[in-house]
Amino acid sequence: MTTETLSQAPAPTDAQATAFLRDFHEVAAIGATPNHGVDRQAATAEDRETREWFRAFAERRGWEVRVDGIGNQFALIELVPGAPYALLGSHLDSQPLGGRFDGAYGVIAGLHAADRLVARHAAGASGAPGTAQAPRLNLAVVNWFNEEGGRFAPSIMGSSVFAGLKDEAEMLAVQDLRGVSVREALDAIGYLGSDARPEIAAYAEIHIEQGRILEREGLPIGAVDASWHTQKLDIEVLGEQSHTGATLMGDRHDALLGAAKVIQRVHEVTDLFPPETLVSSVGQLTLEPNSPIVVARRVHLVADLRADDRDVVLAARDRILGDIRAIEAEHGLVIHARDFDVRENQFYPEAGLALAEAVTSELGHAARRIRTMAGHDSVAMNRIAPTVMLFIPSVDGVSHCEREFSRDEDMAVGVEVLTEVAWRLVHGALPRG
Amino acid sequence: MTTETLSQAPAPTDAQATAFLRDFHEVAAIGATPNHGVDRQAATAEDRETREWFRAFAERRGWEVRVDGIGNQFALIELVPGAPYALLGSHLDSQPLGGRFDGAYGVIAGLHAADRLVARHAAGASGAPGTAQAPRLNLAVVNWFNEEGGRFAPSIMGSSVFAGLKDEAEMLAVQDLRGVSVREALDAIGYLGSDARPEIAAYAEIHIEQGRILEREGLPIGAVDASWHTQKLDIEVLGEQSHTGATLMGDRHDALLGAAKVIQRVHEVTDLFPPETLVSSVGQLTLEPNSPIVVARRVHLVADLRADDRDVVLAARDRILGDIRAIEAEHGLVIHARDFDVRENQFYPEAGLALAEAVTSELGHAARRIRTMAGHDSVAMNRIAPTVMLFIPSVDGVSHCEREFSRDEDMAVGVEVLTEVAWRLVHGALPRG
Repeated sequence: MTTETLSQAPAPTDAQATAFLRDFHEVAAIGATPNHGVDRQAATAEDRETREWFRAFAERRGWEVRVDGIGNQFALIELVPGAPYALLGSHLDSQPLGGRFDGAYGVIAGLHAADRLVARHAAGASGAPGTAQAPRLNLAVVNWFNEEGGRFAPSIMGSSVFAGLKDEAEMLAVQDLRGVSVREALDAIGYLGSDARPEIAAYAEIHIEQGRILEREGLPIGAVDASWHTQKLDIEVLGEQSHTGATLMGDRHDALLGAAKVIQRVHEVTDLFPPETLVSSVGQLTLEPNSPIVVARRVHLVADLRADDRDVVLAARDRILGDIRAIEAEHGLVIHARDFDVRENQFYPEAGLALAEAVTSELGHAARRIRTMAGHDSVAMNRIAPTVMLFIPSVDGVSHCEREFSRDEDMAVGVEVLTEVAWRLVHGALPRG
Repeated sequence: MTTETLSQAPAPTDAQATAFLRDFHEVAAIGATPNHGVDRQAATAEDRETREWFRAFAERRGWEVRVDGIGNQFALIELVPGAPYALLGSHLDSQPLGGRFDGAYGVIAGLHAADRLVARHAAGASGAPGTAQAPRLNLAVVNWFNEEGGRFAPSIMGSSVFAGLKDEAEMLAVQDLRGVSVREALDAIGYLGSDARPEIAAYAEIHIEQGRILEREGLPIGAVDASWHTQKLDIEVLGEQSHTGATLMGDRHDALLGAAKVIQRVHEVTDLFPPETLVSSVGQLTLEPNSPIVVARRVHLVADLRADDRDVVLAARDRILGDIRAIEAEHGLVIHARDFDVRENQFYPEAGLALAEAVTSELGHAARRIRTMAGHDSVAMNRIAPTVMLFIPSVDGVSHCEREFSRDEDMAVGVEVLTEVAWRLVHGALPRG
């Protein structure tokens, strides 16, 4: 099927454009923080509130709502009885003191794209069954559980379980730093579901770039062609607890001092590679006993390494492991380091890239191909269904913070592009390879 | 009054010696940890259990028990109606996974010294009122609240309030890392008291050395002549939260990286001074948001600096503050550092040192004068009453850890010395200066 056989994409009505922005800013008020961010960690009361909002949006339109065994929330729209679904979506959870765009934009854009598509379909733009204008797929929108991984590691949890990349029972047993399991937390907010998972034939996600490339080049849309290679190192530093006052310096085995040196080596390793080639840092750390007058006996920390080139990540990892051996020897510590959450480069299908570029161009905008340094639910979904991943510009390239920002006009263009991509997916534009 | 006018110190009976060791090891079972330590942080269920044990010990002997407004627990023995008290004691709270000797030894030694003294008094060794053999003071034993400061900072809390060095209301409002206040925690274990504080005319405390000097020199008793100058730096590192994957290295303001460098500088400053002159380290640290894929926006940490010479501490502090300015500039961070818990050198009275040395010698043992690098309740009490501080040897000089150890025979000698010191204090050996 060629795109020419479909009806011309209608411009959104003023009411549609206004409705999207109104809903986006309404959801941004849930778990809002003082400096324009949101705090909606997975399976908290705030996460629950966004889920209720999602449910109400769907139910008002008569769409079926389902929740699966890992808390993924779906809105289902039947266009072709018995057909599999084209799925749109992202996640409504956030980092602690996170931004209001990351994830939420993609879910709300997905809901509004679906709403516009249904209106266009109802208006008779789709043809009779069996014709070129007839839909081939049903349409669904998803709010994936725990994309952020701030409370429960690993991140991209719900979509990874959905795609069969992670074991559901294992993920349900994951605990946060207070010992609460995913299962308990989902149950507590009423979102430990048991509904059947829809069969997915195509997936599309739109997200803020979280980098500076689109802003630098003045482009409204990025078509993501691949994800960076990422991996984490789970590091445990074991020393000996002692008195910060009475113990001679030479008698100490200070786990926090060892950890401080590990953190610096994890940072400094990026200097060994060309600029913008590798990012590497430590964001999570706990120490025991964490008393002002006790030398720490144990520190647990997580290092995050990412590069486009897998070999760069592995070289950096090996360098850090060598540094760790030296720190162990210097301070009489035992340091365990374990590879964790390794994600190879993922390449999005060429047909999806071409589709995104064609749609953007037909709507009168320019797009470029772009790589993602961050992980996304689409990386998991791309393993099981033809996937289109779109970016819109981020101001200053910052994210996971309250001052994360994207402009209304860029968001609006993104919804238009996503709507047309969804229309074509439903009409079979991206058949399974 | 000279010591010659008092009756000869009686050797402890076998029953007395056995009773002390039995009680010491019984208390060590409260909050016991797998590797022979204890975990009895201030105002926890385990702390409450030791308090119930203390109360039972006193009540079995008909001694009055009082609890004051900051949770200090006293056992009072009236020998001279209306007279002030000679007070013995230390603390039963511990660090998390702490040792079973630190503090507990001094409280249990105090109770047994009091028990022996009462027996000797009842046996008629004390003379009639007005004679040289008559007691001049009453006797009390104390279990001070929160000496360790692991859960609630500052340490040495109960005795500092007692001595008027800290404000009671302010200390009751101090919160632990979970936001529980001292007032709430004491109330929860039933030890937020309101009893009148006894008037104290003299104080004696016995404690493990926590260093290697007595062990190295083969001496059973140290008479503490002064405390080191100690201070803390309360340090807050403010960066900007961002994505560990998507944010360029050059765009980051990583509070944890800055904190790691501060920790290392706090450690390295000790190398600028002769060995064993200065100790300095960081034992407490919290970070926000503490998510594996988010660059930290804020780290709070506490550095602890100690030296015999105040000028050494101040020089080290100034050096660290200079290093902090450089770290701020290098990483685009804001770092606040505030002096906190500054404790000047305290000198114990010469008369008390002479008393401790004389008693040790008369009992057939050798003592040496020694300084304390660690803080003790006696440092606070020495500000308001003539104070004797005794040390017994620590094996390997380690403390605040499960393998902290002192031998039964050294503990036994300590109780004998403390008993005789208490006897002489009660008989007016150390009048107010």
